[in-house]
Amino acid sequence: MSFAVKNLFANLPAGTSGEDSLTLFESPNVKITRIVSLAYSSPAGFWYDQTEDEWVIVLRGGGALEFADGEIVELKAGDYLALPRHVKHRVARTSAETIWLAVQVT
Amino acid sequence: MSFAVKNLFANLPAGTSGEDSLTLFESPNVKITRIVSLAYSSPAGFWYDQTEDEWVIVLRGGGALEFADGEIVELKAGDYLALPRHVKHRVARTSAETIWLAVQVT
Repeated sequence: MSFAVKNLFANLPAGTSGEDSLTLFESPNVKITRIVSLAYSSPAGFWYDQTEDEWVIVLRGGGALEFADGEIVELKAGDYLALPRHVKHRVARTSAETIWLAVQVT
Repeated sequence: MSFAVKNLFANLPAGTSGEDSLTLFESPNVKITRIVSLAYSSPAGFWYDQTEDEWVIVLRGGGALEFADGEIVELKAGDYLALPRHVKHRVARTSAETIWLAVQVT
């Protein structure tokens, strides 16, 4: 049996703005995604309202999440938090290159 | 609603040997664990033979996994791989401080 080893920090998106998602692992109950945010904000007025619980960690860079009640949560590399399903949130801002790892659980 | 943000690189174990596990997230189908390996090897002859699929990434340091067929997989920071359930493996070695993130999926 041979194992496919890949690197999270390889093949990063080019450019200076936007957001890029890459699925790293997927099973019926779980999806693991690398998200690269380039000086990114969610569109004004947009809220994620997910049907999955999510656990998210910042692995490079930093940013801030905004919640529907107005709370702003600042995140730096290594910071993680759990986002229960249907907790509305958006990306308020990120650094020039922020790498997130997100685990979505159905 | 207030969110508990923690940092993966905080409260690392002291010492120069051994292995430390910390549960970061747990649901009926998924468990996310930080494992800190300090110049660690699994005991000679020991094999993990897990009933869960596992996705694992090295976030700091590096090491090598050994598989029952003799394959050795070297891992450095950022490297990730999926370990299907019941694929027997052990930690062959790690650097002085290796931080793994493991997602176990039932």
